[in-house]
Amino acid sequence: MKKNYKFTISYDGTRYFGWEHQPDKETIQGKLESVLEKMCGEFTDVIGAGRTDAGVHAQEMVANAVFESDLEPDEIRDYFNRYLPEDIRVLEVREASPRFHARYKAVGKTYRYTCFDGPVTPVFDRKYLTAVDTVLDVEVMRKAAVFLEGEHDYKSFCGNSRMKKSTVRVVDSIKIQRNKGYVYFTFHGTGFLQNMVRILVGTLLLVGKGEIKPETVVEILEAKDRKAAGPTAPASGLCLMKVDY
Amino acid sequence: MKKNYKFTISYDGTRYFGWEHQPDKETIQGKLESVLEKMCGEFTDVIGAGRTDAGVHAQEMVANAVFESDLEPDEIRDYFNRYLPEDIRVLEVREASPRFHARYKAVGKTYRYTCFDGPVTPVFDRKYLTAVDTVLDVEVMRKAAVFLEGEHDYKSFCGNSRMKKSTVRVVDSIKIQRNKGYVYFTFHGTGFLQNMVRILVGTLLLVGKGEIKPETVVEILEAKDRKAAGPTAPASGLCLMKVDY
Repeated sequence: MKKNYKFTISYDGTRYFGWEHQPDKETIQGKLESVLEKMCGEFTDVIGAGRTDAGVHAQEMVANAVFESDLEPDEIRDYFNRYLPEDIRVLEVREASPRFHARYKAVGKTYRYTCFDGPVTPVFDRKYLTAVDTVLDVEVMRKAAVFLEGEHDYKSFCGNSRMKKSTVRVVDSIKIQRNKGYVYFTFHGTGFLQNMVRILVGTLLLVGKGEIKPETVVEILEAKDRKAAGPTAPASGLCLMKVDY
Repeated sequence: MKKNYKFTISYDGTRYFGWEHQPDKETIQGKLESVLEKMCGEFTDVIGAGRTDAGVHAQEMVANAVFESDLEPDEIRDYFNRYLPEDIRVLEVREASPRFHARYKAVGKTYRYTCFDGPVTPVFDRKYLTAVDTVLDVEVMRKAAVFLEGEHDYKSFCGNSRMKKSTVRVVDSIKIQRNKGYVYFTFHGTGFLQNMVRILVGTLLLVGKGEIKPETVVEILEAKDRKAAGPTAPASGLCLMKVDY
């Protein structure tokens, strides 16, 4: 009998073309689906909580898949980890209710963006951060972040210019913390538009470098125009931390 | 006028053939010397505190070099970081006394070896640890470690079978700590033989897996024979943390 399984997955997105399967390209979903096909003998969809862009990492992405297996959940996890490349790991497999759907049932997501503004970029996590050549003013970025929190039309922060659906989202919190040269931006919201976290960070960095004032982000929000916002910050600094259900 | 400069260097050793320069091979010393040659216009030795093996990392390796430059120490650091690959970083450059010698003046070194014995190897630091397939008994390894501390002839733990000089060394402390699935082995001593830390870890892992008793390490020490000790643990888990002067 087919069952619905919930997967928690961690990956280093550096060498991948993002989550979503694409012909002839290495993607996270593609890798998972090919292991699942090997295990089940037939192609089975792996449904992710969302799509991460090329180069973006995940501490705990959630996915589900419906298939038949005699293996226990921990054995399924071990089977995946035996055949997956070492930059993708299945952390946990659990049997879920038949109604569980990784995308539709997600009620919140936490993303973290890591910058480093010290004089020497650290060697060991160089692939998981974005080096910034100006010392960032965390206080002014926090002021700007307050304007960006809440329910807003984030059209200015949407990377998809042909987006036809609503660009209104709720970002309940944006926290900015410094630990020596590391500056962490933590976003929690019900959902995010394409590139939205990276454009928010790209805009906050303009504030942190003194290039625009914190209040300017209000005008950027109101412009509802991608060109009003800052650049899209590089993918390497972004990590999907957690999905809430 | 030539001055003596002290360098503190961090590197991810994964893709290098170790510290020491070798013709036609990528090494840390080789990379540093080629940047220094570019800067000074002539070949100049970069003297390291010691030689790390292929694949071994360093949090803070120390080196010195004698050369003439109009640049300030921080500018020398930035010059190096501009031309070095991103897996090698010069953390600090300081002018040192003419008598400072990174190898001869070193009085102690700290190495850390990282194992992971949980069910799923972490993605983000996978290159800086060694995954172990048995849950390690930290208590028995600590008992064994006590026998390995002190001044001993570590011939059984020397990877160089043709070593003609004394194999007596002082290891003042071996600390073993667990943090969830991570098990850290921290060694401090005045000096270490070739592969010594990795063979000590390989032997302690036999104890931790229950394959030999803690007391057996006394016999291994007394045997003064490489064949008596455990295998050489993989390079990836080892990191030179600090050099004392």
